[in-house]
Amino acid sequence: MNNTSEATQLKSVITSAELLHHWQGHRNLTRRVIEAFPEKEFFEFSIGGMRTAAGLIQELISIAGPGMRQIATGENAAQDHTPDLKNSKAHVLKLWDEGTEQINHYWAMLPMERFHEEIVAFGMYPGSVWSTIMYFHDNEIHHRAQVYVYLRALGIEPPFFYER
Amino acid sequence: MNNTSEATQLKSVITSAELLHHWQGHRNLTRRVIEAFPEKEFFEFSIGGMRTAAGLIQELISIAGPGMRQIATGENAAQDHTPDLKNSKAHVLKLWDEGTEQINHYWAMLPMERFHEEIVAFGMYPGSVWSTIMYFHDNEIHHRAQVYVYLRALGIEPPFFYER
Repeated sequence: MNNTSEATQLKSVITSAELLHHWQGHRNLTRRVIEAFPEKEFFEFSIGGMRTAAGLIQELISIAGPGMRQIATGENAAQDHTPDLKNSKAHVLKLWDEGTEQINHYWAMLPMERFHEEIVAFGMYPGSVWSTIMYFHDNEIHHRAQVYVYLRALGIEPPFFYER
Repeated sequence: MNNTSEATQLKSVITSAELLHHWQGHRNLTRRVIEAFPEKEFFEFSIGGMRTAAGLIQELISIAGPGMRQIATGENAAQDHTPDLKNSKAHVLKLWDEGTEQINHYWAMLPMERFHEEIVAFGMYPGSVWSTIMYFHDNEIHHRAQVYVYLRALGIEPPFFYER
């Protein structure tokens, strides 16, 4: 670590690079949860009238990459709630990996000074850049945890929460 | 906002006060999820061999207040995994509120400069102060989301995720 980044850290609760790494760690775990799900049940199984695992992951895909693109570029597209999953887990994982790359790409365009800028995510949800990104991150943990319960209900042990 | 805090914000992804407010917003939601759960089922219902809602919330109670006390004071107590819930939701909510107060109390003792200090939470889990606090925060979202599925399985609509 050079002196500049050390100085930045001492003034920060968390740096931009750390927050990205933290989120991508969670995304790596979510990817493994998708992998652990049986193909058929991924698109069909649910509990208590909730969405299937596919439906929950579809929401996460519709948010992460497109949301980061909007934050970085300032474009103001509506959320497309239904990216085509092609009824295939392999395709879901492909979309997931594209989202991961998009996040890295657009994150690099986001200077520290912008994290307190006020924005309107997807033209609908007002907040700061940091609170919007935290929403994306928290919402992923929330829905992935629900998929954990689906896996347990199917008798499958999910990946450990603390392994990223 | 005075000029000093504005200057701090411009150098920060998220400030200490913002991270506390964000976490306490989540804790407020978790409290309402506990309130929404029927008394008997809170201690008895589960899915797929998982812990009951009481068991999951017990873990969160054992982490938040004691974890923040340890971070702030440097004491190195082991985690007490089984705070006594007295088989009563009212008592769980009392413990929850005590944790909320503990977090506020010990957070105020934590200067910005300490967030990148390396610690060993509960004498077992190495990490930085920020990553440890994020783990507490993320782990709460994770287990609360599982309780959301329990509520849905019982035919009860949980509080909205985005209302804090």
